[in-house]
Amino acid sequence: MLKLEEKEFLLNSIRVIYDYPQPGIIFRDITTLINNKQAFSLTINHLKERYIGYNLDFIAGIESRGFIFGTALAYALNIGFVPIRKKGKLPYTTISEKYALEYGFSEIEIHIDAFKDTQKEIPNVLLIDDLIATGGTALAAANLIKQAGAQCVESCFIINLKDLQGAKAMRERTQVYSLLDL
Amino acid sequence: MLKLEEKEFLLNSIRVIYDYPQPGIIFRDITTLINNKQAFSLTINHLKERYIGYNLDFIAGIESRGFIFGTALAYALNIGFVPIRKKGKLPYTTISEKYALEYGFSEIEIHIDAFKDTQKEIPNVLLIDDLIATGGTALAAANLIKQAGAQCVESCFIINLKDLQGAKAMRERTQVYSLLDL
Repeated sequence: MLKLEEKEFLLNSIRVIYDYPQPGIIFRDITTLINNKQAFSLTINHLKERYIGYNLDFIAGIESRGFIFGTALAYALNIGFVPIRKKGKLPYTTISEKYALEYGFSEIEIHIDAFKDTQKEIPNVLLIDDLIATGGTALAAANLIKQAGAQCVESCFIINLKDLQGAKAMRERTQVYSLLDL
Repeated sequence: MLKLEEKEFLLNSIRVIYDYPQPGIIFRDITTLINNKQAFSLTINHLKERYIGYNLDFIAGIESRGFIFGTALAYALNIGFVPIRKKGKLPYTTISEKYALEYGFSEIEIHIDAFKDTQKEIPNVLLIDDLIATGGTALAAANLIKQAGAQCVESCFIINLKDLQGAKAMRERTQVYSLLDL
């Protein structure tokens, strides 16, 4: 577990931007966390400690802030990293999943053979993103991991916007861990 | 330096996709390198060894495959990471740089205070991306690093497509290092 003063430090390293990307939204800018070497290494070291006993085979990160935390953690744990990207960005054969936004739909994809490079029949995967809000993207990502033949053993977010209930919905599918609940 | 058999191993871990994204293009797919834990850790450990004596303050990575290698390396070196993103993706005040594509223009941005979190007047920055082709994006990124008040001491690419001469153009601005010259 993070100590209270460590949580406080990480929270203070995240820049708050009001009315971005639209009026009424309070945006949490994690670029100030990752360019602060103490905050960035504290985050990854904490996650390394948590997940070292999980017997993970891969980390799957959601484009593109999920790449930032996911690849550093994959390196720290000496496992592979799998990108989940917006439609049309992955070059090989993909599986894709549509999900609803407030207005309209979005679609994310994973390579069909993303989890093949292992001896295990059903590899263990950790899903990671910087933030969970309503959870639409994360749920779609968990579906993709399953369709690609792996098990999503936990979903990890740096920030959980509690009031939007995404983590609650996600808990019906996977374990959920978040560093900062706002 | 990478040993010949290590280069061979990394090269074989990169998937080749013909006629993507358009006919005549041979696309180098690094997702098969990063989901292979041996190839991914070899890459990052090699770069860690190279850059540990460089006295770097930050790594700047170009969206979004530059994030994959850059954040893992920043963690390995215990320094901060700065994202360079496509126009309109960074939430705070930015500096932006336009550059020519084959047809038309593209534009990338950096946060104006990206390199402020350090004691040094002019911080040392390593620029990283997965691949250099004609070098348009990398040159624009080096300009952004300078405009944001830092020095780009070297540019690092996993793959250098030699015939397209981007690395050659880039060498007039910064030192250049590439793992695989194709």
